[in-house]
Amino acid sequence: MENEFDFIKNKLKPLTFKKNEARGLSDDCAYFDNLNDLVVSVDTSIEGIHIPLGTDLAIQSRRAVLRAVSDLATFGSSPICVFVAMSLPNSSQQIDFDKITQGLRKALIEYDIFLAGGDITKHEGLAIFSITVFGDGANKELGRNKAKAEDLIVVSGPIGDSFLGLELLKNKISINSLEDKNLINKFLIPDPKIQLGKKIKSYATSIIDISDGLLSELHHLSENSEVGANIYIKDIPFSLAANNYLEANLYNYIDLITGGDDYELLYTVDPKNIDLIDDDSFIIGKIISDKKINLYSIDNNIIDINNSSFGYKHF
Amino acid sequence: MENEFDFIKNKLKPLTFKKNEARGLSDDCAYFDNLNDLVVSVDTSIEGIHIPLGTDLAIQSRRAVLRAVSDLATFGSSPICVFVAMSLPNSSQQIDFDKITQGLRKALIEYDIFLAGGDITKHEGLAIFSITVFGDGANKELGRNKAKAEDLIVVSGPIGDSFLGLELLKNKISINSLEDKNLINKFLIPDPKIQLGKKIKSYATSIIDISDGLLSELHHLSENSEVGANIYIKDIPFSLAANNYLEANLYNYIDLITGGDDYELLYTVDPKNIDLIDDDSFIIGKIISDKKINLYSIDNNIIDINNSSFGYKHF
Repeated sequence: MENEFDFIKNKLKPLTFKKNEARGLSDDCAYFDNLNDLVVSVDTSIEGIHIPLGTDLAIQSRRAVLRAVSDLATFGSSPICVFVAMSLPNSSQQIDFDKITQGLRKALIEYDIFLAGGDITKHEGLAIFSITVFGDGANKELGRNKAKAEDLIVVSGPIGDSFLGLELLKNKISINSLEDKNLINKFLIPDPKIQLGKKIKSYATSIIDISDGLLSELHHLSENSEVGANIYIKDIPFSLAANNYLEANLYNYIDLITGGDDYELLYTVDPKNIDLIDDDSFIIGKIISDKKINLYSIDNNIIDINNSSFGYKHF
Repeated sequence: MENEFDFIKNKLKPLTFKKNEARGLSDDCAYFDNLNDLVVSVDTSIEGIHIPLGTDLAIQSRRAVLRAVSDLATFGSSPICVFVAMSLPNSSQQIDFDKITQGLRKALIEYDIFLAGGDITKHEGLAIFSITVFGDGANKELGRNKAKAEDLIVVSGPIGDSFLGLELLKNKISINSLEDKNLINKFLIPDPKIQLGKKIKSYATSIIDISDGLLSELHHLSENSEVGANIYIKDIPFSLAANNYLEANLYNYIDLITGGDDYELLYTVDPKNIDLIDDDSFIIGKIISDKKINLYSIDNNIIDINNSSFGYKHF
């Protein structure tokens, strides 16, 4: 049985007819040289799959846009506008439309972008937002296929907070601490790294956003670049809140680095450019020519990982 | 309770922040002057809503692309590429992926376009294809808001065949006649009027595609242009097959002109350009300044119509 990635690689990729714009479907974005370097990404958010059932529709619509915008960061691109295709439950009421509008409005204003079009349908299922986002100012040399041996592997911020926030939401634990509220907000309101993407686009050799978990995305980046990686857990940044959960043995490091929804950037930098690396970023390992991922534990032993622990798959 | 159109007009339109590209969300397409006159449309097809439950996935995926492509015809634009966001049932198998690929491939090859990107998700619902299509070569003066009094109202081909095809599919009648098979194919495999759109873009004053029924689309066109229309049923083209169903009293004229899914073009032409009108098109009425729609029966009596009979609403 094919998974999403096999379906894309084996069946859908040939439908690009090798057009450069599609980039072999290996990046999250398409790139149009002939349209003023337009960058386009499509991202679908489904209630009950990407966000817990019953989440406020204002959060759902806002998050759907933010998730799509996040893809642009990997090209150092800034968003211009979005198209919103929404499939809404048959039972949708006036208040639902108001909520959706409110959430979209927040995301649009935050990035100074506009709604350019879309489609509305009603169906028997839950809320689905399929967002097409346009961006400009990209570095088309970027993407996930140009990491090379010896490059430093860098992440833009703490890993696993969003995963923990989702766990808190799923377990319906009543949240009192500010730290836990922050974890939940990390999940519900992603903060696309657009500014950082613009900053690093001149010196990163490859960029990917960590929507499907650090380990999974590192795997994609390595596979597309035909390289491997050494990664050191001791160098991966975790928030104080995450460290508390780790110390309490409620979650382990593997949970956090495979959990997904971080929306941080994972990027690679030639070691000669080490001084250019952003102060808020963290070097967590290096690219190796051997096509495998070596994950080193907190006490520097290799952890046995296999593909199945590379992160959750939506598909 | 708001319907789709009120939601768009009252809530979503303000989110365009009056950017020209969005055209006030009143057309099916967005138009980007600054991106080589790129035209963009988004169209969602849901199994069980837009196409009967259980329809072959090769047909579903193909039809979804064709429906989206059809929107471009209203700008005289030709398709360049599509982005396909698909939400597929959890139970999807290898064979389903193959079918989807096969259908997409047919539509892409037919229009010499490519797959530029998209997104794949699995969910508890049925198959959903949300297509974003890019087009070029548009006439940006076109759209549905420039019809003026005295303009001739023209349709590009027979009305109601697709509606009858859908009825045949829904009633699960076993189909023997070639005519009935043709009706079904009219529904399942729309034939976007791209070539005609390119031909008439220089002289039509407004164009709309008849996806939601002739009467409903005429209503949109009139409303957006702030005019009205006289329409004569005797001048509306119906196929031989449709005439047989009419004569047998199985369906009436109102069924056919409100049924939807025709994907013919409805357009308006200044009477001074009457000689330019395409030979395969039919003049079915004229635009009037009075903002109402007068529908004349086969024996030229005004038929009392109200908004509720203007066509089905997906939303």
